[in-house]
Amino acid sequence: MMFITFEGIDGCGKSTQAKLLEERLRAAFPTNIVFVRDPGNTGISESIRALILDNKHTAMTARTELLLYSAARAQLVDTIIAPALQSGAIVVSDRFTDSTIAYQSFGRGLPLEDIRRANVVATGGLIPHLTFFLDVPLAHAKERCASKNADRLENAGDEFFERVIHGYRVLSEAEPERVVCLDATLEVQVLHYRIWTVVETMITKKLPGA
Amino acid sequence: MMFITFEGIDGCGKSTQAKLLEERLRAAFPTNIVFVRDPGNTGISESIRALILDNKHTAMTARTELLLYSAARAQLVDTIIAPALQSGAIVVSDRFTDSTIAYQSFGRGLPLEDIRRANVVATGGLIPHLTFFLDVPLAHAKERCASKNADRLENAGDEFFERVIHGYRVLSEAEPERVVCLDATLEVQVLHYRIWTVVETMITKKLPGA
Repeated sequence: MMFITFEGIDGCGKSTQAKLLEERLRAAFPTNIVFVRDPGNTGISESIRALILDNKHTAMTARTELLLYSAARAQLVDTIIAPALQSGAIVVSDRFTDSTIAYQSFGRGLPLEDIRRANVVATGGLIPHLTFFLDVPLAHAKERCASKNADRLENAGDEFFERVIHGYRVLSEAEPERVVCLDATLEVQVLHYRIWTVVETMITKKLPGA
Repeated sequence: MMFITFEGIDGCGKSTQAKLLEERLRAAFPTNIVFVRDPGNTGISESIRALILDNKHTAMTARTELLLYSAARAQLVDTIIAPALQSGAIVVSDRFTDSTIAYQSFGRGLPLEDIRRANVVATGGLIPHLTFFLDVPLAHAKERCASKNADRLENAGDEFFERVIHGYRVLSEAEPERVVCLDATLEVQVLHYRIWTVVETMITKKLPGA
Protein backbone atom coordinates (compact mmCIF):
# COMPACT_ATOMS: atom_id res chain seq x y z
CA MET A 1 0.00 0.00 0.00
CA MET A 2 1.07 3.54 -0.72
CA PHE A 3 -0.48 6.96 -0.39
CA ILE A 4 0.58 9.68 -2.89
CA THR A 5 -0.77 13.24 -2.89
CA PHE A 6 -0.58 16.18 -5.29
CA GLU A 7 -0.44 19.76 -4.03
CA GLY A 8 -0.26 23.30 -5.42
CA ILE A 9 -2.55 26.21 -6.28
CA ASP A 10 -5.35 25.81 -8.83
CA GLY A 11 -3.92 26.06 -12.34
CA CYS A 12 -0.59 24.46 -11.41
CA GLY A 13 -1.52 21.35 -13.37
CA LYS A 14 -1.77 18.97 -10.41
CA SER A 15 -5.11 17.44 -11.42
CA THR A 16 -3.70 16.63 -14.89
CA GLN A 17 -0.56 15.12 -13.35
CA ALA A 18 -2.51 13.15 -10.75
CA LYS A 19 -4.67 11.62 -13.51
CA LEU A 20 -1.62 10.84 -15.69
CA LEU A 21 0.04 9.12 -12.73
CA GLU A 22 -3.12 7.15 -12.00
CA GLU A 23 -3.25 5.88 -15.61
CA ARG A 24 0.42 4.97 -15.62
CA LEU A 25 0.07 3.14 -12.29
CA ARG A 26 -2.87 1.13 -13.59
CA ALA A 27 -0.84 0.07 -16.62
CA ALA A 28 2.30 -0.74 -14.62
CA PHE A 29 1.13 -2.50 -11.45
CA PRO A 30 -1.42 -5.23 -10.73
CA THR A 31 -2.19 -3.53 -7.39
CA ASN A 32 -5.57 -1.88 -6.95
CA ILE A 33 -5.27 1.87 -7.76
CA VAL A 34 -7.66 4.33 -6.11
CA PHE A 35 -7.95 7.93 -7.24
CA VAL A 36 -9.56 10.57 -5.02
CA ARG A 37 -10.00 14.31 -4.82
CA ASP A 38 -9.97 16.09 -1.43
CA PRO A 39 -12.53 17.54 -0.74
CA GLY A 40 -14.73 15.19 -2.73
CA ASN A 41 -15.54 11.63 -3.76
CA THR A 42 -18.29 10.97 -1.23
CA GLY A 43 -21.78 12.48 -1.38
CA ILE A 44 -21.23 14.08 2.01
CA SER A 45 -17.81 15.53 1.07
CA GLU A 46 -19.26 16.94 -2.17
CA SER A 47 -22.07 18.63 -0.22
CA ILE A 48 -19.48 20.13 2.13
CA ARG A 49 -17.29 21.23 -0.80
CA ALA A 50 -20.27 22.98 -2.41
CA LEU A 51 -20.99 24.76 0.86
CA ILE A 52 -17.37 25.98 1.20
CA LEU A 53 -17.08 27.25 -2.38
CA ASP A 54 -20.52 28.93 -2.51
CA ASN A 55 -20.06 32.63 -3.25
CA LYS A 56 -23.01 33.52 -1.01
CA HIS A 57 -21.00 32.42 2.06
CA THR A 58 -18.66 35.43 2.13
CA ALA A 59 -19.16 35.70 5.91
CA MET A 60 -17.48 32.32 6.45
CA THR A 61 -14.61 32.68 8.93
CA ALA A 62 -11.21 31.03 8.47
CA ARG A 63 -11.80 28.58 11.32
CA THR A 64 -15.17 27.51 9.91
CA GLU A 65 -13.54 26.92 6.52
CA LEU A 66 -10.75 24.90 8.17
CA LEU A 67 -13.22 22.68 10.03
CA LEU A 68 -15.41 22.15 6.96
CA TYR A 69 -12.42 21.02 4.88
CA SER A 70 -11.49 18.77 7.79
CA ALA A 71 -15.00 17.28 7.91
CA ALA A 72 -14.95 16.49 4.18
CA ARG A 73 -11.51 14.93 4.64
CA ALA A 74 -12.62 12.79 7.60
CA GLN A 75 -15.42 11.30 5.48
CA LEU A 76 -13.00 10.63 2.59
CA VAL A 77 -10.38 9.02 4.87
CA ASP A 78 -12.84 6.90 6.87
CA THR A 79 -14.87 5.58 3.94
CA ILE A 80 -12.38 5.45 1.03
CA ILE A 81 -8.68 6.15 1.70
CA ALA A 82 -8.14 4.16 4.92
CA PRO A 83 -10.04 1.03 3.75
CA ALA A 84 -8.19 1.15 0.38
CA LEU A 85 -4.77 1.40 2.05
CA GLN A 86 -5.71 -1.39 4.45
CA SER A 87 -6.53 -3.62 1.49
CA GLY A 88 -3.09 -2.91 -0.02
CA ALA A 89 -4.11 -0.38 -2.69
CA ILE A 90 -2.09 2.56 -4.03
CA VAL A 91 -4.10 5.73 -3.37
CA VAL A 92 -3.52 8.92 -5.38
CA SER A 93 -5.17 12.07 -4.01
CA ASP A 94 -5.60 15.45 -5.66
CA ARG A 95 -4.92 17.61 -2.53
CA PHE A 96 -4.76 16.50 1.13
CA THR A 97 -3.62 17.88 4.51
CA ASP A 98 -0.82 20.06 3.06
CA SER A 99 -3.48 22.12 1.27
CA THR A 100 -4.95 22.98 4.65
CA ILE A 101 -1.56 24.09 5.96
CA ALA A 102 -0.81 26.19 2.87
CA TYR A 103 -4.28 27.75 2.45
CA GLN A 104 -5.62 28.06 5.98
CA SER A 105 -2.39 28.79 7.85
CA PHE A 106 -0.14 30.62 5.36
CA GLY A 107 -3.07 31.96 3.33
CA ARG A 108 -5.69 32.82 5.95
CA GLY A 109 -3.31 33.29 8.87
CA LEU A 110 -4.67 30.66 11.27
CA PRO A 111 -2.19 29.32 13.87
CA LEU A 112 -0.32 26.27 12.56
CA GLU A 113 -1.14 24.45 15.79
CA ASP A 114 -4.90 24.70 15.05
CA ILE A 115 -4.34 23.29 11.55
CA ARG A 116 -2.35 20.39 12.97
CA ARG A 117 -5.10 19.65 15.53
CA ALA A 118 -7.77 19.69 12.81
CA ASN A 119 -5.66 17.51 10.50
CA VAL A 120 -5.09 14.91 13.22
CA VAL A 121 -8.80 14.71 14.01
CA ALA A 122 -9.69 14.49 10.30
CA THR A 123 -7.13 11.85 9.29
CA GLY A 124 -6.57 9.90 12.50
CA GLY A 125 -2.88 10.71 11.96
CA LEU A 126 -2.58 9.42 8.37
CA ILE A 127 0.35 11.06 6.50
CA PRO A 128 1.06 10.60 2.76
CA HIS A 129 4.14 8.54 1.88
CA LEU A 130 4.93 10.89 -1.00
CA THR A 131 3.68 14.36 -1.96
CA PHE A 132 4.30 16.27 -5.18
CA PHE A 133 4.16 20.05 -4.86
CA LEU A 134 3.76 21.56 -8.33
CA ASP A 135 5.38 24.96 -8.04
CA VAL A 136 4.26 27.53 -10.60
CA PRO A 137 4.30 31.37 -10.69
CA LEU A 138 0.87 32.81 -9.86
CA ALA A 139 0.58 34.60 -13.25
CA HIS A 140 1.12 31.29 -15.02
CA ALA A 141 -1.54 29.52 -12.93
CA LYS A 142 -4.04 32.34 -13.46
CA GLU A 143 -3.63 32.08 -17.23
CA ARG A 144 -4.53 28.39 -17.07
CA CYS A 145 -7.55 29.15 -14.85
CA ALA A 146 -8.80 32.13 -16.89
CA SER A 147 -11.57 30.21 -18.60
CA LYS A 148 -13.15 28.92 -15.36
CA ASN A 149 -15.72 30.74 -13.24
CA ALA A 150 -14.14 32.13 -10.11
CA ASP A 151 -15.47 30.59 -6.91
CA ARG A 152 -15.16 32.07 -3.43
CA LEU A 153 -11.59 30.88 -2.91
CA GLU A 154 -10.41 32.01 -6.31
CA ASN A 155 -11.78 35.47 -5.51
CA ALA A 156 -9.42 35.75 -2.55
CA GLY A 157 -6.85 37.92 -4.38
CA ASP A 158 -3.23 37.69 -5.53
CA GLU A 159 -1.60 38.32 -2.14
CA PHE A 160 -3.51 35.41 -0.67
CA PHE A 161 -2.27 33.03 -3.37
CA GLU A 162 1.31 34.30 -3.08
CA ARG A 163 1.18 33.42 0.62
CA VAL A 164 -0.20 29.97 -0.25
CA ILE A 165 2.64 29.33 -2.74
CA HIS A 166 5.14 30.48 -0.12
CA GLY A 167 3.52 28.09 2.39
CA TYR A 168 3.96 25.14 0.04
CA ARG A 169 7.63 26.06 -0.47
CA VAL A 170 8.21 26.21 3.29
CA LEU A 171 6.54 22.80 3.64
CA SER A 172 8.66 21.19 0.94
CA GLU A 173 11.83 22.60 2.53
CA ALA A 174 10.74 21.37 5.98
CA GLU A 175 9.96 17.83 4.78
CA PRO A 176 12.17 17.19 1.71
CA GLU A 177 11.96 13.40 2.12
CA ARG A 178 8.19 13.39 1.70
CA VAL A 179 7.40 16.57 -0.28
CA VAL A 180 8.97 16.71 -3.76
CA CYS A 181 8.91 20.23 -5.22
CA LEU A 182 8.72 20.30 -9.02
CA ASP A 183 8.85 23.13 -11.58
CA ALA A 184 5.31 23.00 -12.94
CA THR A 185 6.02 25.29 -15.88
CA LEU A 186 7.63 22.27 -17.56
CA GLU A 187 5.84 20.61 -20.44
CA VAL A 188 3.16 18.14 -19.24
CA GLN A 189 4.89 14.96 -20.40
CA VAL A 190 8.29 16.05 -19.07
CA LEU A 191 6.74 16.72 -15.66
CA HIS A 192 4.90 13.41 -15.78
CA TYR A 193 8.17 11.60 -16.54
CA ARG A 194 9.86 13.19 -13.51
CA ILE A 195 6.94 12.23 -11.26
CA TRP A 196 6.85 8.72 -12.63
CA THR A 197 10.58 8.23 -12.02
CA VAL A 198 10.18 9.09 -8.33
CA VAL A 199 7.04 6.98 -7.88
CA GLU A 200 8.36 3.93 -9.74
CA THR A 201 11.56 3.92 -7.70
CA MET A 202 9.65 4.17 -4.45
CA ILE A 203 7.06 1.55 -5.34
CA THR A 204 9.65 -0.90 -6.62
CA LYS A 205 11.48 -0.56 -3.29
CA LYS A 206 8.28 -0.78 -1.28
CA LEU A 207 6.53 -3.52 -3.24
CA PRO A 208 9.23 -5.84 -4.53
CA GLY A 209 6.56 -8.32 -5.63
CA ALA A 210 4.50 -5.73 -7.56
CA MET B 1 -19.84 39.64 30.37
CA MET B 2 -20.92 36.12 31.06
CA PHE B 3 -21.42 32.97 29.03
CA ILE B 4 -24.11 30.49 30.14
CA THR B 5 -24.91 27.22 28.34
CA PHE B 6 -27.70 24.65 28.57
CA GLU B 7 -27.04 20.95 27.99
CA GLY B 8 -28.92 17.66 27.93
CA ILE B 9 -30.63 15.30 25.49
CA ASP B 10 -33.51 16.49 23.30
CA GLY B 11 -36.72 16.49 25.29
CA CYS B 12 -35.01 17.38 28.60
CA GLY B 13 -36.56 20.85 28.49
CA LYS B 14 -33.33 22.83 28.02
CA SER B 15 -34.62 25.00 25.16
CA THR B 16 -37.61 26.03 27.28
CA GLN B 17 -35.37 26.79 30.26
CA ALA B 18 -32.86 28.68 28.15
CA LYS B 19 -35.62 30.89 26.77
CA LEU B 20 -37.11 31.46 30.25
CA LEU B 21 -33.69 32.46 31.55
CA GLU B 22 -33.18 34.80 28.61
CA GLU B 23 -36.49 36.56 29.33
CA ARG B 24 -35.75 36.85 33.03
CA LEU B 25 -32.26 38.24 32.32
CA ARG B 26 -33.69 40.86 29.97
CA ALA B 27 -36.13 41.96 32.66
CA ALA B 28 -33.54 41.98 35.45
CA PHE B 29 -30.37 43.46 33.94
CA PRO B 30 -29.65 46.43 31.71
CA THR B 31 -26.79 44.44 30.10
CA ASN B 32 -27.19 43.32 26.50
CA ILE B 33 -28.54 39.72 26.44
CA VAL B 34 -27.72 37.50 23.46
CA PHE B 35 -29.47 34.18 22.91
CA VAL B 36 -28.00 31.57 20.56
CA ARG B 37 -28.50 27.95 19.58
CA ASP B 38 -25.50 25.74 18.74
CA PRO B 39 -25.47 24.66 15.93
CA GLY B 40 -27.37 27.57 14.46
CA ASN B 41 -27.93 31.32 14.37
CA THR B 42 -25.81 32.09 11.29
CA GLY B 43 -26.76 31.20 7.71
CA ILE B 44 -23.64 29.07 7.41
CA SER B 45 -24.23 27.26 10.71
CA GLU B 46 -27.85 26.55 9.72
CA SER B 47 -26.69 25.07 6.38
CA ILE B 48 -24.22 22.87 8.26
CA ARG B 49 -26.89 21.85 10.80
CA ALA B 50 -29.23 20.85 7.95
CA LEU B 51 -26.46 18.76 6.40
CA ILE B 52 -25.74 16.94 9.70
CA LEU B 53 -29.38 16.14 10.46
CA ASP B 54 -30.35 15.08 6.92
CA ASN B 55 -31.58 11.48 7.01
CA LYS B 56 -30.04 10.79 3.59
CA HIS B 57 -26.55 11.10 5.12
CA THR B 58 -26.59 7.77 6.97
CA ALA B 59 -23.03 7.09 5.75
CA MET B 60 -21.68 10.04 7.74
CA THR B 61 -18.86 8.88 10.01
CA ALA B 62 -18.49 10.00 13.64
CA ARG B 63 -15.41 12.12 12.87
CA THR B 64 -17.16 13.90 10.00
CA GLU B 65 -20.09 14.67 12.30
CA LEU B 66 -17.70 15.96 14.99
CA LEU B 67 -15.94 18.29 12.54
CA LEU B 68 -19.20 19.58 11.05
CA TYR B 69 -20.54 20.47 14.50
CA SER B 70 -17.19 22.13 15.17
CA ALA B 71 -17.39 24.14 11.93
CA ALA B 72 -20.88 25.42 12.78
CA ARG B 73 -19.62 26.31 16.27
CA ALA B 74 -16.58 28.19 14.93
CA GLN B 75 -18.86 30.38 12.80
CA LEU B 76 -21.16 31.02 15.78
CA VAL B 77 -18.26 31.86 18.12
CA ASP B 78 -16.37 34.08 15.66
CA THR B 79 -19.33 36.08 14.41
CA ILE B 80 -21.74 36.20 17.39
CA ILE B 81 -20.60 34.81 20.77
CA ALA B 82 -17.05 36.24 20.98
CA PRO B 83 -17.99 39.77 19.77
CA ALA B 84 -20.98 39.80 22.18
CA LEU B 85 -18.84 38.77 25.16
CA GLN B 86 -16.19 41.32 24.19
CA SER B 87 -18.85 44.03 24.23
CA GLY B 88 -19.87 42.98 27.77
CA ALA B 89 -23.05 41.04 26.92
CA ILE B 90 -24.50 38.03 28.73
CA VAL B 91 -24.71 35.18 26.22
CA VAL B 92 -27.08 32.23 26.73
CA SER B 93 -26.53 29.25 24.44
CA ASP B 94 -28.77 26.24 23.86
CA ARG B 95 -25.95 23.59 23.64
CA PHE B 96 -22.19 24.15 23.27
CA THR B 97 -18.93 22.15 23.57
CA ASP B 98 -20.25 19.77 26.26
CA SER B 99 -22.76 18.43 23.72
CA THR B 100 -19.86 17.36 21.54
CA ILE B 101 -18.20 15.55 24.45
CA ALA B 102 -21.43 13.81 25.47
CA TYR B 103 -22.67 12.91 21.96
CA GLN B 104 -19.49 12.34 19.94
CA SER B 105 -17.27 10.84 22.64
CA PHE B 106 -19.62 9.04 25.06
CA GLY B 107 -22.30 8.47 22.38
CA ARG B 108 -20.31 7.71 19.23
CA GLY B 109 -17.17 6.45 20.94
CA LEU B 110 -14.62 8.92 19.52
CA PRO B 111 -11.48 9.47 21.64
CA LEU B 112 -11.95 12.31 24.12
CA GLU B 113 -8.63 13.79 22.96
CA ASP B 114 -10.01 14.27 19.41
CA ILE B 115 -13.09 16.03 20.79
CA ARG B 116 -10.91 18.34 22.87
CA ARG B 117 -8.77 19.16 19.82
CA ALA B 118 -11.84 19.93 17.71
CA ASN B 119 -13.38 22.02 20.51
CA VAL B 120 -10.23 24.11 20.91
CA VAL B 121 -10.04 24.80 17.17
CA ALA B 122 -13.76 25.67 17.03
CA THR B 123 -13.88 27.96 20.07
CA GLY B 124 -10.35 29.34 20.28
CA GLY B 125 -10.39 28.03 23.88
CA LEU B 126 -13.63 29.72 25.00
CA ILE B 127 -15.23 27.89 27.97
CA PRO B 128 -18.69 28.72 29.44
CA HIS B 129 -18.71 30.36 32.88
CA LEU B 130 -21.76 28.34 33.86
CA THR B 131 -23.46 25.28 32.34
CA PHE B 132 -26.80 23.75 33.30
CA PHE B 133 -27.13 20.04 32.58
CA LEU B 134 -30.81 19.11 32.64
CA ASP B 135 -30.83 15.47 33.70
CA VAL B 136 -33.92 13.47 32.74
CA PRO B 137 -34.62 9.73 32.27
CA LEU B 138 -34.63 8.78 28.58
CA ALA B 139 -38.25 7.54 28.67
CA HIS B 140 -39.35 10.91 29.99
CA ALA B 141 -37.47 12.81 27.25
CA LYS B 142 -38.85 10.53 24.53
CA GLU B 143 -42.39 11.23 25.67
CA ARG B 144 -41.80 14.97 25.29
CA CYS B 145 -40.26 14.42 21.82
CA ALA B 146 -42.92 11.99 20.57
CA SER B 147 -44.74 14.54 18.48
CA LYS B 148 -41.66 15.66 16.49
CA ASN B 149 -40.31 14.02 13.33
CA ALA B 150 -37.22 11.96 14.10
CA ASP B 151 -34.06 13.24 12.42
CA ARG B 152 -30.87 11.25 11.87
CA LEU B 153 -29.60 11.78 15.43
CA GLU B 154 -32.90 10.95 17.06
CA ASN B 155 -32.92 7.70 15.11
CA ALA B 156 -29.70 6.63 16.81
CA GLY B 157 -31.38 4.33 19.35
CA ASP B 158 -31.87 4.10 23.11
CA GLU B 159 -28.41 2.77 23.97
CA PHE B 160 -26.83 5.73 22.24
CA PHE B 161 -28.86 8.22 24.28
CA GLU B 162 -28.21 6.35 27.53
CA ARG B 163 -24.46 6.72 26.83
CA VAL B 164 -24.98 10.45 26.13
CA ILE B 165 -26.82 10.94 29.45
CA HIS B 166 -24.05 9.04 31.23
CA GLY B 167 -21.49 11.31 29.51
CA TYR B 168 -23.22 14.44 30.79
CA ARG B 169 -23.27 13.00 34.32
CA VAL B 170 -19.54 12.24 34.15
CA LEU B 171 -18.92 15.81 32.93
CA SER B 172 -20.93 17.42 35.73
CA GLU B 173 -19.10 15.29 38.31
CA ALA B 174 -15.73 16.21 36.78
CA GLU B 175 -16.44 19.97 36.74
CA PRO B 176 -18.96 20.63 39.54
CA GLU B 177 -17.97 24.32 39.78
CA ARG B 178 -19.01 24.99 36.19
CA VAL B 179 -21.57 22.29 35.36
CA VAL B 180 -24.71 22.35 37.50
CA CYS B 181 -26.72 19.13 37.23
CA LEU B 182 -30.47 19.59 37.76
CA ASP B 183 -33.39 17.16 37.99
CA ALA B 184 -35.27 18.06 34.82
CA THR B 185 -38.39 16.10 35.76
CA LEU B 186 -39.28 19.02 38.05
CA GLU B 187 -42.10 21.33 37.08
CA VAL B 188 -40.98 24.02 34.56
CA GLN B 189 -41.31 27.01 36.91
CA VAL B 190 -39.61 25.19 39.81
CA LEU B 191 -36.68 24.33 37.59
CA HIS B 192 -36.54 27.89 36.27
CA TYR B 193 -36.46 29.22 39.83
CA ARG B 194 -33.48 26.97 40.70
CA ILE B 195 -31.63 28.08 37.57
CA TRP B 196 -32.41 31.73 38.22
CA THR B 197 -31.11 31.51 41.80
CA VAL B 198 -27.73 30.23 40.60
CA VAL B 199 -27.48 32.75 37.74
CA GLU B 200 -28.56 35.75 39.79
CA THR B 201 -26.05 34.95 42.52
CA MET B 202 -23.24 34.59 40.02
CA ILE B 203 -24.11 37.71 38.02
CA THR B 204 -24.52 39.84 41.11
CA LYS B 205 -21.05 38.74 42.24
CA LYS B 206 -19.57 39.20 38.77
CA LEU B 207 -21.29 42.45 37.82
CA PRO B 208 -21.74 44.44 41.04
CA GLY B 209 -22.85 47.43 38.97
CA ALA B 210 -25.46 45.50 36.99
